[in-house]
Amino acid sequence: MRLAVCQVSAALGDKAKNIATISRAVHTAACWGTDLVVLPELFLTGYNIGSRAAELAEAVDGPSLTAVAKIAARESCAICVGFAERDGKNVFNSSALFDTQGNLVALYRKIHLFGPKEQELFTAGDELVVARLGDCTIGMAICYDIEFPEFARALKRRGADLIVAPTANMLPFVEVPTTFVRARALENGLFLAYANHCGTEAELEYTGMSGISGPDGLDLARAGIRGEALLLAELPTTYPIGSLSTQSDDLRLSAEK
Amino acid sequence: MRLAVCQVSAALGDKAKNIATISRAVHTAACWGTDLVVLPELFLTGYNIGSRAAELAEAVDGPSLTAVAKIAARESCAICVGFAERDGKNVFNSSALFDTQGNLVALYRKIHLFGPKEQELFTAGDELVVARLGDCTIGMAICYDIEFPEFARALKRRGADLIVAPTANMLPFVEVPTTFVRARALENGLFLAYANHCGTEAELEYTGMSGISGPDGLDLARAGIRGEALLLAELPTTYPIGSLSTQSDDLRLSAEK
Repeated sequence: MRLAVCQVSAALGDKAKNIATISRAVHTAACWGTDLVVLPELFLTGYNIGSRAAELAEAVDGPSLTAVAKIAARESCAICVGFAERDGKNVFNSSALFDTQGNLVALYRKIHLFGPKEQELFTAGDELVVARLGDCTIGMAICYDIEFPEFARALKRRGADLIVAPTANMLPFVEVPTTFVRARALENGLFLAYANHCGTEAELEYTGMSGISGPDGLDLARAGIRGEALLLAELPTTYPIGSLSTQSDDLRLSAEK
Repeated sequence: MRLAVCQVSAALGDKAKNIATISRAVHTAACWGTDLVVLPELFLTGYNIGSRAAELAEAVDGPSLTAVAKIAARESCAICVGFAERDGKNVFNSSALFDTQGNLVALYRKIHLFGPKEQELFTAGDELVVARLGDCTIGMAICYDIEFPEFARALKRRGADLIVAPTANMLPFVEVPTTFVRARALENGLFLAYANHCGTEAELEYTGMSGISGPDGLDLARAGIRGEALLLAELPTTYPIGSLSTQSDDLRLSAEK
Protein backbone atom coordinates (compact mmCIF):
# COMPACT_ATOMS: atom_id res chain seq x y z
CA MET A 1 0.00 0.00 0.00
CA ARG A 2 1.22 3.49 -0.81
CA LEU A 3 0.08 6.36 1.33
CA ALA A 4 0.39 10.14 1.09
CA VAL A 5 0.05 12.85 3.68
CA CYS A 6 -0.39 16.35 2.38
CA GLN A 7 0.81 19.26 4.53
CA VAL A 8 -0.65 22.40 3.05
CA SER A 9 -2.07 25.80 3.90
CA ALA A 10 -5.77 26.17 3.18
CA ALA A 11 -7.24 29.32 1.65
CA LEU A 12 -9.56 30.48 4.46
CA GLY A 13 -13.18 30.21 3.39
CA ASP A 14 -12.30 29.56 -0.26
CA LYS A 15 -13.62 26.07 -0.91
CA ALA A 16 -13.04 26.20 -4.68
CA LYS A 17 -9.36 26.98 -4.17
CA ASN A 18 -8.97 24.26 -1.56
CA ILE A 19 -10.66 21.72 -3.83
CA ALA A 20 -8.17 22.72 -6.54
CA THR A 21 -5.34 22.03 -4.06
CA ILE A 22 -6.84 18.63 -3.26
CA SER A 23 -7.10 17.90 -6.99
CA ARG A 24 -3.45 18.75 -7.55
CA ALA A 25 -2.21 16.81 -4.53
CA VAL A 26 -4.21 13.69 -5.39
CA HIS A 27 -3.19 13.83 -9.04
CA THR A 28 0.46 14.09 -7.99
CA ALA A 29 0.16 11.24 -5.51
CA ALA A 30 -1.64 9.06 -8.05
CA CYS A 31 1.26 9.46 -10.49
CA TRP A 32 3.39 7.64 -7.90
CA GLY A 33 0.82 4.84 -7.52
CA THR A 34 -0.54 6.12 -4.21
CA ASP A 35 -3.63 4.35 -2.84
CA LEU A 36 -4.77 6.91 -0.27
CA VAL A 37 -4.12 10.63 0.34
CA VAL A 38 -4.79 12.16 3.76
CA LEU A 39 -5.42 15.92 4.01
CA PRO A 40 -5.70 18.20 7.08
CA GLU A 41 -8.62 18.87 9.43
CA LEU A 42 -11.34 21.21 8.09
CA PHE A 43 -9.19 21.58 4.99
CA LEU A 44 -12.13 22.31 2.72
CA THR A 45 -12.67 25.70 4.39
CA GLY A 46 -9.47 26.20 6.37
CA TYR A 47 -9.45 25.48 10.10
CA ASN A 48 -9.68 28.95 11.60
CA ILE A 49 -13.08 29.89 10.17
CA GLY A 50 -14.56 30.85 13.57
CA SER A 51 -18.18 31.86 13.41
CA ARG A 52 -18.34 31.19 9.66
CA ALA A 53 -18.33 27.44 10.37
CA ALA A 54 -22.13 27.23 10.33
CA GLU A 55 -22.43 29.21 7.12
CA LEU A 56 -19.66 27.29 5.30
CA ALA A 57 -20.69 23.83 6.50
CA GLU A 58 -22.01 21.40 3.89
CA ALA A 59 -23.66 18.02 3.91
CA VAL A 60 -21.39 15.12 3.03
CA ASP A 61 -23.36 14.76 -0.22
CA GLY A 62 -23.13 18.51 -0.91
CA PRO A 63 -21.32 20.03 -3.88
CA SER A 64 -17.84 20.28 -2.31
CA LEU A 65 -17.59 16.71 -1.08
CA THR A 66 -19.11 15.51 -4.35
CA ALA A 67 -16.26 17.29 -6.11
CA VAL A 68 -13.75 15.52 -3.83
CA ALA A 69 -15.42 12.16 -4.55
CA LYS A 70 -15.03 12.81 -8.26
CA ILE A 71 -11.32 13.55 -7.81
CA ALA A 72 -10.93 10.19 -6.03
CA ALA A 73 -12.70 8.37 -8.87
CA ARG A 74 -10.81 10.28 -11.58
CA GLU A 75 -7.42 9.46 -10.04
CA SER A 76 -8.38 5.98 -8.73
CA CYS A 77 -7.00 7.15 -5.40
CA ALA A 78 -8.79 7.15 -2.05
CA ILE A 79 -9.03 10.48 -0.19
CA CYS A 80 -9.54 11.35 3.46
CA VAL A 81 -10.27 15.03 4.10
CA GLY A 82 -11.60 17.12 6.97
CA PHE A 83 -14.60 19.43 6.50
CA ALA A 84 -17.31 21.30 8.37
CA GLU A 85 -20.38 19.09 8.06
CA ARG A 86 -23.95 20.32 8.07
CA ASP A 87 -26.56 17.79 9.21
CA GLY A 88 -29.88 19.47 9.92
CA LYS A 89 -29.32 21.92 12.74
CA ASN A 90 -26.00 20.40 13.73
CA VAL A 91 -22.53 21.32 12.50
CA PHE A 92 -19.83 18.69 13.00
CA ASN A 93 -16.05 18.78 12.62
CA SER A 94 -15.94 15.75 10.33
CA SER A 95 -13.73 13.74 8.03
CA ALA A 96 -14.87 11.84 4.96
CA LEU A 97 -13.14 8.85 3.40
CA PHE A 98 -13.78 8.17 -0.28
CA ASP A 99 -12.56 4.98 -1.92
CA THR A 100 -10.87 4.68 -5.32
CA GLN A 101 -14.27 4.68 -7.05
CA GLY A 102 -15.33 7.84 -5.24
CA ASN A 103 -17.72 6.02 -2.90
CA LEU A 104 -18.07 7.40 0.62
CA VAL A 105 -16.87 4.56 2.84
CA ALA A 106 -16.58 6.44 6.14
CA LEU A 107 -17.90 9.60 7.71
CA TYR A 108 -16.45 10.43 11.12
CA ARG A 109 -17.55 13.26 13.43
CA LYS A 110 -14.82 14.45 15.80
CA ILE A 111 -15.47 13.19 19.30
CA HIS A 112 -12.84 15.16 21.25
CA LEU A 113 -13.47 18.79 20.35
CA PHE A 114 -10.49 20.96 21.33
CA GLY A 115 -11.08 23.84 23.69
CA PRO A 116 -14.04 26.20 24.15
CA LYS A 117 -13.91 27.54 20.58
CA GLU A 118 -14.42 24.19 18.87
CA GLN A 119 -16.99 23.26 21.48
CA GLU A 120 -18.93 26.42 20.72
CA LEU A 121 -18.81 25.97 16.94
CA PHE A 122 -19.37 22.24 16.59
CA THR A 123 -21.50 19.44 17.96
CA ALA A 124 -19.34 16.58 19.25
CA GLY A 125 -19.62 13.22 17.52
CA ASP A 126 -20.25 10.13 19.61
CA GLU A 127 -19.37 7.22 17.35
CA LEU A 128 -16.09 5.47 16.57
CA VAL A 129 -15.72 4.72 12.87
CA VAL A 130 -13.69 2.08 11.06
CA ALA A 131 -14.03 1.21 7.38
CA ARG A 132 -12.54 -1.26 4.91
CA LEU A 133 -10.40 0.06 2.09
CA GLY A 134 -9.04 -2.79 -0.02
CA ASP A 135 -7.29 -5.17 2.36
CA CYS A 136 -6.90 -2.54 5.05
CA THR A 137 -9.14 -1.55 7.95
CA ILE A 138 -9.00 2.20 8.43
CA GLY A 139 -9.71 3.85 11.78
CA MET A 140 -10.90 7.45 11.63
CA ALA A 141 -9.55 10.13 13.97
CA ILE A 142 -9.25 13.92 13.95
CA CYS A 143 -6.47 15.88 15.65
CA TYR A 144 -7.09 16.06 19.44
CA ASP A 145 -8.56 12.52 19.42
CA ILE A 146 -5.02 11.23 19.01
CA GLU A 147 -3.96 12.60 22.40
CA PHE A 148 -6.12 9.98 24.18
CA PRO A 149 -4.64 6.47 24.26
CA GLU A 150 -8.10 4.95 24.79
CA PHE A 151 -9.28 6.33 21.46
CA ALA A 152 -6.64 4.68 19.26
CA ARG A 153 -6.91 1.52 21.37
CA ALA A 154 -10.64 1.35 20.71
CA LEU A 155 -10.02 1.70 16.95
CA LYS A 156 -7.44 -1.09 17.18
CA ARG A 157 -9.95 -3.32 18.96
CA ARG A 158 -12.30 -2.71 16.03
CA GLY A 159 -9.60 -4.00 13.70
CA ALA A 160 -7.82 -0.85 12.52
CA ASP A 161 -4.55 -1.48 10.63
CA LEU A 162 -4.15 2.21 9.83
CA ILE A 163 -5.49 5.31 11.57
CA VAL A 164 -5.96 8.40 9.41
CA ALA A 165 -5.89 11.68 11.32
CA PRO A 166 -6.52 14.99 9.60
CA THR A 167 -5.29 17.58 12.06
CA ALA A 168 -4.84 21.29 12.78
CA ASN A 169 -2.12 21.27 15.41
CA MET A 170 -0.74 24.67 16.34
CA LEU A 171 1.90 26.22 18.56
CA PRO A 172 2.83 25.60 21.31
CA PHE A 173 1.98 21.89 20.91
CA VAL A 174 5.12 20.90 19.02
CA GLU A 175 5.43 17.45 20.62
CA VAL A 176 2.00 16.16 19.58
CA PRO A 177 2.77 15.25 15.95
CA THR A 178 5.82 13.20 16.91
CA THR A 179 5.50 11.87 20.46
CA PHE A 180 1.78 11.10 20.44
CA VAL A 181 1.60 9.89 16.85
CA ARG A 182 4.55 7.52 17.29
CA ALA A 183 3.21 6.31 20.65
CA ARG A 184 -0.25 5.48 19.26
CA ALA A 185 1.30 3.62 16.32
CA LEU A 186 3.69 1.67 18.53
CA GLU A 187 1.40 0.83 21.44
CA ASN A 188 -1.24 -0.49 19.04
CA GLY A 189 0.97 -2.00 16.34
CA LEU A 190 -0.59 -0.06 13.49
CA PHE A 191 0.17 2.66 10.94
CA LEU A 192 -0.86 6.22 11.66
CA ALA A 193 -1.08 8.98 9.05
CA TYR A 194 -1.26 12.50 10.48
CA ALA A 195 -1.84 15.39 8.06
CA ASN A 196 -1.44 18.90 9.46
CA HIS A 197 -1.75 22.42 8.17
CA CYS A 198 1.34 24.63 7.92
CA GLY A 199 1.87 28.36 8.01
CA THR A 200 -0.52 30.70 9.83
CA GLU A 201 -4.24 31.45 9.88
CA ALA A 202 -4.78 34.75 11.74
CA GLU A 203 -3.54 34.18 15.33
CA LEU A 204 -2.83 30.47 14.81
CA GLU A 205 0.59 29.22 13.79
CA TYR A 206 0.56 25.57 12.79
CA THR A 207 3.32 23.17 13.71
CA GLY A 208 3.43 21.17 10.48
CA MET A 209 5.33 17.92 11.25
CA SER A 210 2.82 15.84 9.31
CA GLY A 211 3.91 12.25 9.14
CA ILE A 212 3.31 8.56 8.80
CA SER A 213 4.46 6.31 11.64
CA GLY A 214 4.67 2.52 11.49
CA PRO A 215 3.87 -0.31 13.92
CA ASP A 216 7.40 -0.08 15.34
CA GLY A 217 6.83 3.58 16.25
CA LEU A 218 9.34 4.79 13.67
CA ASP A 219 8.44 7.34 11.04
CA LEU A 220 8.04 6.24 7.44
CA ALA A 221 7.92 9.90 6.44
CA ARG A 222 7.88 13.17 8.32
CA ALA A 223 7.50 16.77 7.19
CA GLY A 224 9.14 19.76 8.80
CA ILE A 225 7.57 22.51 10.88
CA ARG A 226 7.38 25.10 8.13
CA GLY A 227 6.65 24.84 4.45
CA GLU A 228 4.28 22.76 2.41
CA ALA A 229 5.16 19.12 1.86
CA LEU A 230 3.66 16.17 0.10
CA LEU A 231 5.02 12.90 1.49
CA LEU A 232 4.54 9.75 -0.58
CA ALA A 233 5.51 6.57 1.25
CA GLU A 234 5.27 2.86 0.77
CA LEU A 235 3.99 0.95 3.80
CA PRO A 236 6.25 -2.09 4.30
CA THR A 237 4.25 -5.31 4.34
CA THR A 238 6.41 -6.94 6.98
CA TYR A 239 8.26 -5.63 10.02
CA PRO A 240 11.40 -7.23 11.41
CA ILE A 241 9.95 -7.29 14.92
CA GLY A 242 7.40 -9.92 14.04
CA SER A 243 4.41 -9.84 16.31
CA LEU A 244 3.92 -6.13 16.76
CA SER A 245 0.68 -6.02 14.87
CA THR A 246 -1.00 -8.49 17.19
CA GLN A 247 0.39 -7.26 20.51
CA SER A 248 -2.72 -5.37 21.41
CA ASP A 249 -5.04 -8.32 20.88
CA ASP A 250 -4.26 -9.32 24.43
CA LEU A 251 -5.37 -6.34 26.46
CA ARG A 252 -6.56 -7.88 29.67
CA LEU A 253 -6.12 -4.76 31.71
CA SER A 254 -7.36 -2.21 29.22
CA ALA A 255 -10.72 -0.62 29.85
CA GLU A 256 -12.80 0.19 26.80
CA LYS A 257 -16.11 1.94 26.81
CA MET B 1 11.81 26.63 -4.59
CA ARG B 2 10.33 23.18 -4.40
CA LEU B 3 12.63 20.24 -3.97
CA ALA B 4 12.17 16.47 -4.06
CA VAL B 5 14.29 13.63 -2.74
CA CYS B 6 13.54 10.22 -4.09
CA GLN B 7 14.29 7.20 -1.89
CA VAL B 8 14.07 4.16 -4.13
CA SER B 9 15.58 0.75 -4.78
CA ALA B 10 17.48 0.49 -8.05
CA ALA B 11 17.24 -2.55 -10.31
CA LEU B 12 20.86 -3.79 -10.24
CA GLY B 13 22.45 -3.41 -13.66
CA ASP B 14 19.14 -2.61 -15.37
CA LYS B 15 19.60 0.93 -16.64
CA ALA B 16 16.39 0.98 -18.68
CA LYS B 17 14.33 0.09 -15.63
CA ASN B 18 16.08 2.69 -13.48
CA ILE B 19 15.55 5.37 -16.12
CA ALA B 20 11.85 4.44 -16.09
CA THR B 21 11.85 4.94 -12.30
CA ILE B 22 13.51 8.35 -12.75
CA SER B 23 10.91 9.26 -15.36
CA ARG B 24 8.05 8.35 -13.05
CA ALA B 25 9.53 10.12 -10.02
CA VAL B 26 10.27 13.31 -11.94
CA HIS B 27 6.86 13.33 -13.60
CA THR B 28 5.23 12.94 -10.18
CA ALA B 29 7.35 15.68 -8.64
CA ALA B 30 6.67 18.01 -11.57
CA CYS B 31 2.91 17.65 -11.01
CA TRP B 32 3.49 19.30 -7.62
CA GLY B 33 5.53 22.13 -9.16
CA THR B 34 8.89 20.75 -8.08
CA ASP B 35 12.00 22.51 -9.40
CA LEU B 36 14.64 19.85 -8.69
CA VAL B 37 14.58 16.11 -7.96
CA VAL B 38 17.56 14.43 -6.28
CA LEU B 39 18.09 10.69 -6.77
CA PRO B 40 20.53 8.28 -5.05
CA GLU B 41 24.21 7.55 -5.72
CA LEU B 42 24.96 5.35 -8.74
CA PHE B 43 21.21 5.08 -9.20
CA LEU B 44 21.43 4.51 -12.93
CA THR B 45 22.97 1.06 -12.39
CA GLY B 46 22.31 0.39 -8.72
CA TYR B 47 25.11 0.94 -6.20
CA ASN B 48 26.32 -2.59 -5.55
CA ILE B 49 27.47 -3.40 -9.09
CA GLY B 50 30.96 -4.49 -8.01
CA SER B 51 33.24 -5.41 -10.88
CA ARG B 52 30.54 -4.56 -13.43
CA ALA B 53 31.15 -0.85 -12.78
CA ALA B 54 33.62 -0.56 -15.65
CA GLU B 55 31.38 -2.37 -18.12
CA LEU B 56 28.21 -0.44 -17.12
CA ALA B 57 29.89 2.98 -16.93
CA GLU B 58 28.86 5.56 -19.53
CA ALA B 59 30.02 8.97 -20.61
CA VAL B 60 27.92 11.87 -19.35
CA ASP B 61 26.78 12.41 -22.95
CA GLY B 62 26.05 8.69 -23.41
CA PRO B 63 22.59 7.27 -24.09
CA SER B 64 21.46 6.87 -20.45
CA LEU B 65 22.30 10.38 -19.28
CA THR B 66 20.88 11.76 -22.52
CA ALA B 67 17.63 10.00 -21.63
CA VAL B 68 17.73 11.61 -18.17
CA ALA B 69 18.35 15.04 -19.73
CA LYS B 70 15.28 14.55 -21.92
CA ILE B 71 13.16 13.72 -18.88
CA ALA B 72 14.31 16.99 -17.25
CA ALA B 73 13.38 18.95 -20.36
CA ARG B 74 10.06 17.14 -20.83
CA GLU B 75 9.00 17.82 -17.23
CA SER B 76 10.68 21.25 -16.92
CA CYS B 77 12.24 19.92 -13.74
CA ALA B 78 15.94 19.79 -12.89
CA ILE B 79 17.44 16.39 -11.99
CA CYS B 80 20.49 15.35 -10.00
CA VAL B 81 21.38 11.67 -10.28
CA GLY B 82 24.37 9.47 -9.49
CA PHE B 83 25.94 7.27 -12.16
CA ALA B 84 29.11 5.36 -13.05
CA GLU B 85 30.94 7.65 -15.46
CA ARG B 86 33.29 6.50 -18.18
CA ASP B 87 35.91 9.02 -19.27
CA GLY B 88 38.58 7.37 -21.38
CA LYS B 89 40.28 4.76 -19.21
CA ASN B 90 38.87 6.18 -16.01
CA VAL B 91 35.64 5.25 -14.24
CA PHE B 92 34.30 7.80 -11.77
CA ASN B 93 31.51 7.65 -9.19
CA SER B 94 29.77 10.78 -10.47
CA SER B 95 26.63 12.85 -10.24
CA ALA B 96 25.12 14.91 -13.03
CA LEU B 97 22.88 17.93 -12.63
CA PHE B 98 20.55 18.80 -15.51
CA ASP B 99 18.57 22.03 -15.51
CA THR B 100 14.91 22.45 -16.47
CA GLN B 101 15.85 22.60 -20.16
CA GLY B 102 17.86 19.39 -19.92
CA ASN B 103 21.23 21.14 -20.09
CA LEU B 104 24.08 19.62 -18.10
CA VAL B 105 25.02 22.32 -15.59
CA ALA B 106 27.26 20.29 -13.29
CA LEU B 107 29.25 17.09 -13.39
CA TYR B 108 30.82 16.06 -10.09
CA ARG B 109 33.23 13.17 -9.52
CA LYS B 110 33.18 11.81 -5.96
CA ILE B 111 36.26 12.91 -4.07
CA HIS B 112 35.95 10.81 -0.91
CA LEU B 113 35.60 7.24 -2.15
CA PHE B 114 34.31 4.97 0.62
CA GLY B 115 36.42 1.97 1.61
CA PRO B 116 38.65 -0.33 -0.43
CA LYS B 117 35.86 -1.51 -2.74
CA GLU B 118 35.00 1.92 -4.10
CA GLN B 119 38.68 2.79 -4.26
CA GLU B 120 39.31 -0.29 -6.38
CA LEU B 121 36.41 0.34 -8.75
CA PHE B 122 36.60 4.09 -9.21
CA THR B 123 39.09 6.87 -9.77
CA ALA B 124 38.70 9.61 -7.17
CA GLY B 125 37.67 13.05 -8.34
CA ASP B 126 39.71 16.07 -7.31
CA GLU B 127 37.49 19.04 -8.02
CA LEU B 128 34.79 20.78 -5.99
CA VAL B 129 31.77 21.69 -8.12
CA VAL B 130 29.13 24.36 -7.68
CA ALA B 131 26.61 25.42 -10.33
CA ARG B 132 23.83 27.96 -10.72
CA LEU B 133 20.28 26.73 -11.05
CA GLY B 134 17.85 29.63 -11.28
CA ASP B 135 18.50 31.86 -8.28
CA CYS B 136 20.22 29.11 -6.35
CA THR B 137 23.85 28.03 -6.15
CA ILE B 138 24.04 24.26 -5.90
CA GLY B 139 26.98 22.47 -4.30
CA MET B 140 27.60 18.90 -5.46
CA ALA B 141 28.40 16.08 -3.01
CA ILE B 142 28.13 12.32 -2.98
CA CYS B 143 27.52 10.21 0.13
CA TYR B 144 30.76 9.87 2.15
CA ASP B 145 31.79 13.44 1.21
CA ILE B 146 29.18 14.68 3.65
CA GLU B 147 30.98 13.14 6.62
CA PHE B 148 33.79 15.70 6.29
CA PRO B 149 32.95 19.18 7.61
CA GLU B 150 35.67 20.74 5.45
CA PHE B 151 33.91 19.55 2.31
CA ALA B 152 30.56 21.24 2.92
CA ARG B 153 32.40 24.30 4.23
CA ALA B 154 34.36 24.57 1.02
CA LEU B 155 31.13 24.39 -1.02
CA LYS B 156 29.63 27.10 1.20
CA ARG B 157 32.68 29.31 0.59
CA ARG B 158 32.03 28.89 -3.12
CA GLY B 159 28.52 30.22 -2.59
CA ALA B 160 26.40 27.10 -2.18
CA ASP B 161 22.84 27.74 -0.94
CA LEU B 162 21.90 24.09 -1.33
CA ILE B 163 24.02 20.94 -1.34
CA VAL B 164 22.64 17.96 -3.25
CA ALA B 165 23.96 14.60 -2.09
CA PRO B 166 23.03 11.38 -3.86
CA THR B 167 24.01 8.66 -1.43
CA ALA B 168 24.18 4.91 -0.78
CA ASN B 169 24.35 4.76 3.00
CA MET B 170 24.06 1.29 4.47
CA LEU B 171 23.96 -0.42 7.86
CA PRO B 172 25.41 0.05 10.41
CA PHE B 173 25.75 3.78 9.65
CA VAL B 174 22.28 4.81 10.82
CA GLU B 175 23.35 8.16 12.26
CA VAL B 176 24.86 9.57 9.08
CA PRO B 177 21.65 10.62 7.29
CA THR B 178 20.38 12.57 10.29
CA THR B 179 23.29 13.74 12.47
CA PHE B 180 25.75 14.60 9.70
CA VAL B 181 23.20 15.98 7.24
CA ARG B 182 21.63 18.26 9.85
CA ALA B 183 25.06 19.34 11.13
CA ARG B 184 26.31 20.30 7.66
CA ALA B 185 23.13 22.28 6.96
CA LEU B 186 23.23 24.06 10.30
CA GLU B 187 26.94 24.82 10.54
CA ASN B 188 26.94 26.30 7.04
CA GLY B 189 23.47 27.88 6.98
CA LEU B 190 22.32 26.12 3.84
CA PHE B 191 19.86 23.49 2.61
CA LEU B 192 21.02 19.92 2.15
CA ALA B 193 19.14 17.29 0.14
CA TYR B 194 20.27 13.72 0.78
CA ALA B 195 18.77 10.95 -1.38
CA ASN B 196 19.49 7.38 -0.31
CA HIS B 197 18.64 3.91 -1.57
CA CYS B 198 16.37 1.67 0.48
CA GLY B 199 16.01 -2.08 0.78
CA THR B 200 18.91 -4.44 0.08
CA GLU B 201 21.39 -5.11 -2.73
CA ALA B 202 23.08 -8.47 -2.05
CA GLU B 203 24.96 -8.10 1.26
CA LEU B 204 24.19 -4.40 1.64
CA GLU B 205 21.18 -3.18 3.59
CA TYR B 206 20.52 0.52 3.07
CA THR B 207 19.43 2.82 5.87
CA GLY B 208 16.97 4.94 3.92
CA MET B 209 16.38 8.13 6.00
CA SER B 210 16.62 10.34 2.94
CA GLY B 211 15.84 13.91 3.79
CA ILE B 212 16.05 17.63 3.30
CA SER B 213 17.47 19.74 6.12
CA GLY B 214 17.30 23.51 6.37
CA PRO B 215 19.70 26.25 7.49
CA ASP B 216 18.43 25.87 11.06
CA GLY B 217 19.41 22.20 11.06
CA LEU B 218 15.80 21.05 11.19
CA ASP B 219 14.38 18.64 8.66
CA LEU B 220 11.96 19.90 6.04
CA ALA B 221 11.21 16.31 5.12
CA ARG B 222 12.59 12.94 6.18
CA ALA B 223 11.90 9.42 4.99
CA GLY B 224 11.95 6.30 7.14
CA ILE B 225 14.51 3.51 7.21
CA ARG B 226 12.54 1.05 5.14
CA GLY B 227 10.25 1.50 2.17
CA GLU B 228 10.33 3.72 -0.84
CA ALA B 229 9.40 7.35 -0.39
CA LEU B 230 9.15 10.43 -2.54
CA LEU B 231 9.37 13.60 -0.46
CA LEU B 232 8.19 16.85 -2.03
CA ALA B 233 8.97 19.92 0.04
CA GLU B 234 8.86 23.66 -0.28
CA LEU B 235 12.02 25.46 0.84
CA PRO B 236 10.98 28.42 3.01
CA THR B 237 12.39 31.67 1.67
CA THR B 238 12.97 33.13 5.11
CA TYR B 239 13.98 31.65 8.43
CA PRO B 240 12.95 33.11 11.77
CA ILE B 241 16.55 33.00 13.02
CA GLY B 242 17.64 35.76 10.70
CA SER B 243 21.31 35.64 9.91
CA LEU B 244 21.91 31.90 9.66
CA SER B 245 22.60 31.95 5.97
CA THR B 246 25.53 34.31 6.35
CA GLN B 247 27.07 32.93 9.55
CA SER B 248 29.77 31.05 7.73
CA ASP B 249 30.96 34.06 5.76
CA ASP B 250 33.16 34.88 8.72
CA LEU B 251 35.37 31.83 9.04
CA ARG B 252 38.60 33.22 10.36
CA LEU B 253 39.76 29.98 11.90
CA SER B 254 38.66 27.55 9.22
CA ALA B 255 41.28 25.97 7.05
CA GLU B 256 40.40 25.36 3.46
CA LYS B 257 42.52 23.64 0.89
